[in-house]
Amino acid sequence: MTVKISQASDVQNFFKEASGFNNDAGSSRMKTVINRILVDTAKIVEDLEITQDEFWKAVDYLNRLGGRHEAGLLVAGLGLEHFLDLLEDAKDAQLGLTGGTPRTIEGPLYVAGAPISQGETRMDDGSELDIATVMFLQGKVTGPDGQPVANAVVDLWHANTKGNYSYFDKSQSEYNLRRRIVTDENGNYRARSIVPSGYGCSLDGPTQEVLDMLGRHGRRPAHIHFFISAPGHRHLTTQINLAGDEYLWDDFAYATRDGLVGDIRFVEDAEAARARGIEGSRFAELNFDFQLQKAPAPEAEQRSARPRALQNA
Amino acid sequence: MTVKISQASDVQNFFKEASGFNNDAGSSRMKTVINRILVDTAKIVEDLEITQDEFWKAVDYLNRLGGRHEAGLLVAGLGLEHFLDLLEDAKDAQLGLTGGTPRTIEGPLYVAGAPISQGETRMDDGSELDIATVMFLQGKVTGPDGQPVANAVVDLWHANTKGNYSYFDKSQSEYNLRRRIVTDENGNYRARSIVPSGYGCSLDGPTQEVLDMLGRHGRRPAHIHFFISAPGHRHLTTQINLAGDEYLWDDFAYATRDGLVGDIRFVEDAEAARARGIEGSRFAELNFDFQLQKAPAPEAEQRSARPRALQNA
Repeated sequence: MTVKISQASDVQNFFKEASGFNNDAGSSRMKTVINRILVDTAKIVEDLEITQDEFWKAVDYLNRLGGRHEAGLLVAGLGLEHFLDLLEDAKDAQLGLTGGTPRTIEGPLYVAGAPISQGETRMDDGSELDIATVMFLQGKVTGPDGQPVANAVVDLWHANTKGNYSYFDKSQSEYNLRRRIVTDENGNYRARSIVPSGYGCSLDGPTQEVLDMLGRHGRRPAHIHFFISAPGHRHLTTQINLAGDEYLWDDFAYATRDGLVGDIRFVEDAEAARARGIEGSRFAELNFDFQLQKAPAPEAEQRSARPRALQNA
Repeated sequence: MTVKISQASDVQNFFKEASGFNNDAGSSRMKTVINRILVDTAKIVEDLEITQDEFWKAVDYLNRLGGRHEAGLLVAGLGLEHFLDLLEDAKDAQLGLTGGTPRTIEGPLYVAGAPISQGETRMDDGSELDIATVMFLQGKVTGPDGQPVANAVVDLWHANTKGNYSYFDKSQSEYNLRRRIVTDENGNYRARSIVPSGYGCSLDGPTQEVLDMLGRHGRRPAHIHFFISAPGHRHLTTQINLAGDEYLWDDFAYATRDGLVGDIRFVEDAEAARARGIEGSRFAELNFDFQLQKAPAPEAEQRSARPRALQNA
């Protein structure tokens, strides 16, 4: 009883017309992409017998998704962002571009333009010191030969104790927990910050709405995002996911990967704490080194042109 | 050189996991739909070698599309809403459900709850009488046997002289150019209104942005939308598109269909105008009859559950 018309020539021609194939203006690339999306969408509607009600709920969902600016969160949660990483890995393997720290997803919460400092920095604004655990993070950036890379830019961002990110969480100060650190002559970076909590999707948001329908949670383990770049080296987008977190291997965004687990150590030592200049007796240490690949081409030194937030935009 | 991994079993299993196939909660229908969308999206990315930049521009586009609430406009402009009509027509043909006034797209600009009147109504608030042409619209609603249908609800809406719709255009009064008319004992409806202008997508909106890249315009001919419903009859969603409009057969939303062209007549006759109670000598007349089908099932009497705007929501 299933009626199918999408492969009929008049319908295919209609989609070509709608995709702009009958005119010479516009972008031929975009015409190709849109046409493929139209044909595939029509086929899904037919094959799964999508009802009118389902179709229009989906359209309404897209409005609500964009209205909450959650499209980037949804593609992470549905695994498409991780799929892009798997695909890049496969392309790299084919080209023999292997080795170094694995890539993983960027996520939608980067903000460009964080403060820059040389060698070391303090990341938190101190507003959560009554409830947060101070974290000392450090490590070395090396090249494919294992030699230190001086003047690499370690651009890192992470959540506060509530799992929220500054800029998107307007209660935080500007660029709180967002910094760029230029590695020293030994390739080292050092940051004092606070231990982040895991992120969770907004419970009333459209991403969580879909996850609920899939029987899935929307939680991530505590983690720290990194962009690492240096001339001659391939731009690296990655994360450290913190060992011991209950969601470490149950990340709704599938970002945790072998080689990206950070062995954070919690220390109870009043004397050591005092020596480090912090109150109380508890703090955390996390060492993590990054190894960059050689840039196969100059444009590989840059991150993607993904549209990103600017603090003052 | 093209690398393809989406059909590999580990990637297919990953998408099953992401679609919630590994748990018993949620909606199995939604899991099926999401899984198909994921697998097809991955295949598009591979087949068309979608770049990172292209992918993230598309994600950003979805945010901007929803942010402007234009998802409904985009599916109309890309022909998907018309495709749904073609598919419904094909299903009807298979079931022998033919005859009557053709269906065509609803579009995204309906607002529920317009004022109701018996037999006739005035639709415009008079605010454009200095520039508008008064339009006298009338017709008959009949059933499959050609007999008049009394007490049918003719729920109609159209744009003003600028091509804008009340509610979405906040400069217009509440429910301006939106009315429900209950047909009289002879199945007749009558409305005094103003001649609408054609609609055009917002030039700075995301729908026009895609149309530009496809080399397409975003214009519609002048038209009047209708929902027509009556107990025992199938709900009809349709439009009258006005003859003489330059976009009549060049409608960016593909709504114009044979049988849905309204032969509007412009009259220059001061005496007739006076007799009709209007100033000046120019007015327009439009007669349009609608023939309903029998409802094949009770739910066919209702319009789809598509989420729609409410004036006071």
